[in-house]
Amino acid sequence: METVAIVGVGLIGGSFGLALRKAGFSGEIIGVSGPPALSAALARGAISSTASLAEAAGRADLLYLAQPVDRILNTIASLGPLLSATCLVTDAGSTKRQIVSQASRFLSSGSFLGGHPLAGKEVRGAQAADADLFLNRPYVLTPVTASTPASEDFRSWLGRMGASIIELSPDEHDQTVALTSHLPQLLSTALAATLAHQSNPHLQQIFGPGLVDMTRLARSSPDLWLSILSTNLPALTAALDSFLASLSAIREALGKPDLSSYFEDGAAFAAQLRKLDSTSPPGDLG
Amino acid sequence: METVAIVGVGLIGGSFGLALRKAGFSGEIIGVSGPPALSAALARGAISSTASLAEAAGRADLLYLAQPVDRILNTIASLGPLLSATCLVTDAGSTKRQIVSQASRFLSSGSFLGGHPLAGKEVRGAQAADADLFLNRPYVLTPVTASTPASEDFRSWLGRMGASIIELSPDEHDQTVALTSHLPQLLSTALAATLAHQSNPHLQQIFGPGLVDMTRLARSSPDLWLSILSTNLPALTAALDSFLASLSAIREALGKPDLSSYFEDGAAFAAQLRKLDSTSPPGDLG
Repeated sequence: METVAIVGVGLIGGSFGLALRKAGFSGEIIGVSGPPALSAALARGAISSTASLAEAAGRADLLYLAQPVDRILNTIASLGPLLSATCLVTDAGSTKRQIVSQASRFLSSGSFLGGHPLAGKEVRGAQAADADLFLNRPYVLTPVTASTPASEDFRSWLGRMGASIIELSPDEHDQTVALTSHLPQLLSTALAATLAHQSNPHLQQIFGPGLVDMTRLARSSPDLWLSILSTNLPALTAALDSFLASLSAIREALGKPDLSSYFEDGAAFAAQLRKLDSTSPPGDLG
Repeated sequence: METVAIVGVGLIGGSFGLALRKAGFSGEIIGVSGPPALSAALARGAISSTASLAEAAGRADLLYLAQPVDRILNTIASLGPLLSATCLVTDAGSTKRQIVSQASRFLSSGSFLGGHPLAGKEVRGAQAADADLFLNRPYVLTPVTASTPASEDFRSWLGRMGASIIELSPDEHDQTVALTSHLPQLLSTALAATLAHQSNPHLQQIFGPGLVDMTRLARSSPDLWLSILSTNLPALTAALDSFLASLSAIREALGKPDLSSYFEDGAAFAAQLRKLDSTSPPGDLG
């Protein structure tokens, strides 16, 4: 590929541009975004030029959609007439079933490859973009058609960025992130909202580091999350129902020896997760 | 006070000894514990001698109970005949209602002052003891009788260690920690146990830093937590029921605009918590 266009140059889109450069890409990187995001991305070197979506879609060999999920859905619906015949469209959206289905409806077969980098930071915007954001992190791809020269080329660039590519079906992806990402987000929000609604005046005084950990995700922005959650309702509802069943069983087991099996199963899962996660700090023993 | 005895010289007991020394205490610090813990505490300088509980209780001006909650309850029941007339007994247990009630039953009035340092680390044992563990952290005291010269002296040492003393009734304390400590612990355990019980083979591959945060508490040891939880059942059940009501309401609001109010309330609570917590890192924006 010689020309890449990144649509939405926030943290993920900006990091994709920087990671491409670090991996040795020397072609044009066109940014498509609002003026403040484009300025920040140009200043960081994450993009080398700017254009409208129509112009970028006509010129790019790879179109990287790094917008919020609801905007990715809208962009895909408008892309059909704009794309050059050989352009590969991919995305970085947090859910895949609706996005892949939208692409099947609006784009020609083989021209779309869904993706989701499991990477992020606590800050937004191209200012915080990081050439190593994808390094050693999982990068899910959800192909539903045979690979093409363009999709093989894109994969090889992801490999050069140090991403760990994992192939899943869109449904497998969405069911997995419902449990590992969307459920934890809702629990953190529900915990913080529960505490916000208490009249107890001491809650903001008497707490330890555990509450700080457990309410970190609650600071996530609703505008991003509402569109993620609303595109994964069946899997998320199933995940929530599993959790509600566990928590109700734990409530019944309070004060009884049965409770220890939940602690043991949970501790074993949490320990296993850390063995597999190179970013987790050592000595994290609860 | 000239002689202090610490019963249970793990992380908290060992840190209390080191913090006393750093604050200028030059008297004897007697350790009462199992042989491995005593060796570690002597090696760290957290205690200066060892004795049986009976001998320590007869000689100490302050008896600091830093055992698990169930063992504090047992120790208090056996102390009555052993204590010198002027000894103040205090504890560092994570719940206060049952402990204070046990002290009212077995110890003479005014000789007990319940306490709970909101301090900790992810590692256990006197090896990890830290002279600054209580510095700038809340230290709850739950007096139920008038202060005495011995209790005033103890408070002044806590002040010299840099602890922020907060007075609550035992019930206020237990209701507060049910929400800020015991509920988060159960949610982390329930989340990790829910994931442990899924057949999805991708859970250990496809996750981000949010799941690592949300399962950290799940690694806590069941032996400590079962006795904490079992001594706070009424408040904990009420906290769980509040949470279950919030989460069920969130489940109903999925896919609807109502969901944003939970995100906004949760984000506001989480932000406020961080303003008041000097130990929270900056830029923690979900």
